[in-house]
Amino acid sequence: MIEIALLSVSEFGRVRGASLERLARLSLIADICRANTLAMVKRAGSGHLGTSFSAMDIVVYLYHEVLNTLSAGLDNPGRDIYFSSKGHDVPGLYSVLYSLGAIPREKFIRLRRFGGLDGHPDTGIPGIESNSGSLGMGISKGKGMAWAKRHKGWGGRVYVLTGDGEFQEGQNFEALQTAHHQGISNLTVIIDHNKVQSDKPVSEIVDLGDLGGKLGAFGWHVERCDGHDFGQLSAAVGRCREVGDRPQIIIADTIKGRGVSFMEHPQALEDGKGLYPWHAGAPADGPFEQGYAEIVGRIKAAYLAQGLGEPVFERVEPEPQGRERVTLLGEPVSEAAEDRIRAKVSDEYVAKAFGEALLEIAPSRPDLVVLDADLASDCRVRGFENAVADRFIENGIAEQDMVSMAGGLARMGMLPVVNSFAAFLASRANEQIYNNASEKTKIIYALHYAGLIPAGPGKSHQSIRDISLLGALPNMTIVQPCNADETRQVVRWCVEEARENCAIRLIISPSPRVVPLPPAYRLTYGRGAVIRDGKDAVMFAYGPVMLHEALVASELLAERGFGLRVVNMSWLNRFDAAWLADAVRPFERVYVLEDHAPVGGLSDRLRDALHAAGLLDGRRLTTFAVEGWPACGTPPEALGAHGLDGISLAERLAR
Amino acid sequence: MIEIALLSVSEFGRVRGASLERLARLSLIADICRANTLAMVKRAGSGHLGTSFSAMDIVVYLYHEVLNTLSAGLDNPGRDIYFSSKGHDVPGLYSVLYSLGAIPREKFIRLRRFGGLDGHPDTGIPGIESNSGSLGMGISKGKGMAWAKRHKGWGGRVYVLTGDGEFQEGQNFEALQTAHHQGISNLTVIIDHNKVQSDKPVSEIVDLGDLGGKLGAFGWHVERCDGHDFGQLSAAVGRCREVGDRPQIIIADTIKGRGVSFMEHPQALEDGKGLYPWHAGAPADGPFEQGYAEIVGRIKAAYLAQGLGEPVFERVEPEPQGRERVTLLGEPVSEAAEDRIRAKVSDEYVAKAFGEALLEIAPSRPDLVVLDADLASDCRVRGFENAVADRFIENGIAEQDMVSMAGGLARMGMLPVVNSFAAFLASRANEQIYNNASEKTKIIYALHYAGLIPAGPGKSHQSIRDISLLGALPNMTIVQPCNADETRQVVRWCVEEARENCAIRLIISPSPRVVPLPPAYRLTYGRGAVIRDGKDAVMFAYGPVMLHEALVASELLAERGFGLRVVNMSWLNRFDAAWLADAVRPFERVYVLEDHAPVGGLSDRLRDALHAAGLLDGRRLTTFAVEGWPACGTPPEALGAHGLDGISLAERLAR
Repeated sequence: MIEIALLSVSEFGRVRGASLERLARLSLIADICRANTLAMVKRAGSGHLGTSFSAMDIVVYLYHEVLNTLSAGLDNPGRDIYFSSKGHDVPGLYSVLYSLGAIPREKFIRLRRFGGLDGHPDTGIPGIESNSGSLGMGISKGKGMAWAKRHKGWGGRVYVLTGDGEFQEGQNFEALQTAHHQGISNLTVIIDHNKVQSDKPVSEIVDLGDLGGKLGAFGWHVERCDGHDFGQLSAAVGRCREVGDRPQIIIADTIKGRGVSFMEHPQALEDGKGLYPWHAGAPADGPFEQGYAEIVGRIKAAYLAQGLGEPVFERVEPEPQGRERVTLLGEPVSEAAEDRIRAKVSDEYVAKAFGEALLEIAPSRPDLVVLDADLASDCRVRGFENAVADRFIENGIAEQDMVSMAGGLARMGMLPVVNSFAAFLASRANEQIYNNASEKTKIIYALHYAGLIPAGPGKSHQSIRDISLLGALPNMTIVQPCNADETRQVVRWCVEEARENCAIRLIISPSPRVVPLPPAYRLTYGRGAVIRDGKDAVMFAYGPVMLHEALVASELLAERGFGLRVVNMSWLNRFDAAWLADAVRPFERVYVLEDHAPVGGLSDRLRDALHAAGLLDGRRLTTFAVEGWPACGTPPEALGAHGLDGISLAERLAR
Repeated sequence: MIEIALLSVSEFGRVRGASLERLARLSLIADICRANTLAMVKRAGSGHLGTSFSAMDIVVYLYHEVLNTLSAGLDNPGRDIYFSSKGHDVPGLYSVLYSLGAIPREKFIRLRRFGGLDGHPDTGIPGIESNSGSLGMGISKGKGMAWAKRHKGWGGRVYVLTGDGEFQEGQNFEALQTAHHQGISNLTVIIDHNKVQSDKPVSEIVDLGDLGGKLGAFGWHVERCDGHDFGQLSAAVGRCREVGDRPQIIIADTIKGRGVSFMEHPQALEDGKGLYPWHAGAPADGPFEQGYAEIVGRIKAAYLAQGLGEPVFERVEPEPQGRERVTLLGEPVSEAAEDRIRAKVSDEYVAKAFGEALLEIAPSRPDLVVLDADLASDCRVRGFENAVADRFIENGIAEQDMVSMAGGLARMGMLPVVNSFAAFLASRANEQIYNNASEKTKIIYALHYAGLIPAGPGKSHQSIRDISLLGALPNMTIVQPCNADETRQVVRWCVEEARENCAIRLIISPSPRVVPLPPAYRLTYGRGAVIRDGKDAVMFAYGPVMLHEALVASELLAERGFGLRVVNMSWLNRFDAAWLADAVRPFERVYVLEDHAPVGGLSDRLRDALHAAGLLDGRRLTTFAVEGWPACGTPPEALGAHGLDGISLAERLAR
């Protein structure tokens, strides 16, 4: 385990107290924040460095030179407000808030941990003014804040940072248009124009063209500057404050990964052979040490040059490993069970199988066309993009346009497979999905990153409502495969056999274990499969994450003589009635384990089907689901917080 | 009943066959189509004339001069494709398709009737290429069609008509950006730039500013012409066809209501004292006759001038009035019951009470702010707009921006009341609602036009999924009042007492009857109210439409000695457990009548609550809901098609 250290808050005090030239001071503060950001992302194991670094100078400049936010007080309605619409740059913002004492050390060292700092901004954290993480909402929200300030005469200005790829979202243009019409002038938007999206240049994904010309055509006051030049930033922001009749926008040209040589665009993009490697995720030990040494080297040189001596580092204690004995109802479980619980996750990715299945099917189905919204790597369709380029459509961060485009393709007889994260696709493009469905064409929606896990990115990314959002459509089959083999079968079924629209839920993390299916398992419409037997109760679950927890629960309960049968229920809203009757008949106790909110998921549909068939009388159907807001943290933390890990489930059953 | 006549398809043949100069011929055809459109909207009792007329010359020009659609065949993938993104101009399009024989007379005379022509485009109708009616999707869909044509080498071009107010929807700008990036050149968009939205000028709602400049900044080839000048249209379309490297867009300057003097903007707007009166709805007899005479006068003059003699009109037979005796299980019902069923609707509008309640509350709640998306009249917040102008935000057709703006307002301590139609608000802005909710502020969402009725506008407008779309949010109370009195109580409760977000479902039509509430009724969290007693079964229903049908069913069944208790269940996802237990305890048969799809509505939640309380054992909960796609037609037709009218319900219960 690599050692992590922080430059403490007192260092910022020393720097601010020293008689440094203004720009040198800001530059040094930004580097200290970069070092701390890198350390915290490394410790967290994930987080967005490239964009934290491209935005860092802007954020440091605003908080250390412009905003009265902290001096006025975080509850003062007259405070200046800053927030980032893209949101994934929040590790950088946290480090700036830490530099100002707004976020305490004990929170700061718990990035992406339960009770710590969410992977995307959350207003529950001191200094965070808006939840974000899903793109394109920021200008609209800032407009609302600015409107309220103007209406109430409170004073203070609103500063919203956006990405550049983010400008593929149409909501930005709604807001540009309305904010101008409404004469909002206490709103300044800054575009962190680092030219790189998830892993490719904006110009390759969906080019923004003449960005300044576009923004000017919307009537905004437009500035352009080097976003790493504090002098230019200061001049641009200053000119914006003089504008009294319209909103202002600053295109800040920045460098993704700024401050760590090998993370900087364009070199990093070349090193990655066209894919930018430092958008998300923590660097491995080697690059971490190299990058950290580079930043710290600059800091030390600056300290030396300014006669500040040596910067002081505080070692951050390693995270507790939680090796205490696992207990169930107060008694230790067997070592075998404990090993099972502590086992490393498998190397299976169902999304990988999904991508491979599409690739396999492509030659025999010339109507198949794959659409993506700047998540080709995460959605595992990069292989398809490279191999079947003429049937791959990269549509950028414009989910609504992508879905309606798929509708047009389907009307022309093609079979579109539409990819994005479930949290974005099922909600942002919900009305477009409805519109397409009403034309009775067939479209396959791949809902990636479905469910609670991974829980580090936080509630903008965790999808626990998607089944509810699609369930009331009359012609949508929702299905979630449990392992790679079933994923291939599901994809083939959706392409070859389904007569209506399909939504395929897929987890994005590795499967905790490869969920076992019966030998020669064949996916059958509406039917689940028993994956572990038991005679005392039955649990329906779906997806690799929750089936693993169900299996753990069953294994633990078996040690206490309680037999919990576990059924992989891949079909979330379509059931074979006869099969279902057989599946529940032997049991009085029926459990449903949702990777979803308690409302609108599988259990609502099962309860309905069972009651309609007269099978609920004398039975108890109990739902375990993601209650409330999805917790942020490690998988065990988040599952534990919701009582959905195997041990908690076993406890809840045994009680 | 006023007499309606059509100029039959043979008239178009005569005009086409005569040796008219091209522009005169197009002009005459357009006038014949205008006359037929006006007649059909009058017969239907509703429909959009202003926009049908502003677009008419464009549509006539395309179908009669440019498109190979009908000659190539409607199933030919190489055909040219035209559709309207705004969709509400479809009466005009129907008349053009009728002029070409694509829509038969028996369909044409059944505008907005069950089995006839939907109030917004539906691909089930010959010649309709895309479903629309919710705004902003058209360019994206056209792009998909154009992409498929290019990919397959099929030939043919895609023409998409949009509104100008429609350009407040951000999805348009997504599509402008991606279509340019993707090099789509077989796509031509025409903006019917008639300068008026629902009832106010675009420039007042949300000004589009330098529209040509904006479109040009997105890299499109831009043309501008008089949309009523066939020569200019022809030149502009011709130049677009020459462009081989980018999509093209034509700003066609038009006049809303073109062709009927008193419907033409700007005169009509002046006559309406700033509100355009002819956007939606059929004219009264007087204006109808005046307008019809005006168009027909021009047609007759042209016939005369061209030596075509007199145009031939075909009288359209009046609609059958369906006065046959109402029966239940084959037996006639009492005359009293029959009178009840045939009674005129009341003059109560719950939405009016909603608007009045906001106005009443405004003085005591300076934090209250009302937002609208160009539906201020329909949502009955025009009074608030006029009286409390400084706390009314007209945000145009930009629901996502409106909702996120509300989020920003709420973060600043204001209480936003967000208005739009349920079908648009709950789905288009779903992710924005989620994002706001995750900040744990309080916002009131007013879901207007909730449910199946009115059924004339068709499935883009009927909202039967909104409960499902909001139900999985952890902090959203969904409530629907049954009459004006309860509406006032609901609004006050949401403002004064609710501790979480609220969604208020409101019907838009007049209440079929004023639903009776118990004397001194007081809205109580989680509790319904018995509005008609009965001892044999209980039915939970909500909203004036379905409660009326439930009451009719109960009244009919009472005549047969069956007592159906009817409960007004205003709370759709929050129940008082003790009250609920008492409410169902006396009954073995429990019915839920949904103004919603069967999935995700009240019955899912009631089934859950009753089962959890052990109250479902030995009981039968049966759901009557809007199964499948919501039917288009008159209220009795649509209710009947879904088996949800009082007679059908009584039959279903008695069986």
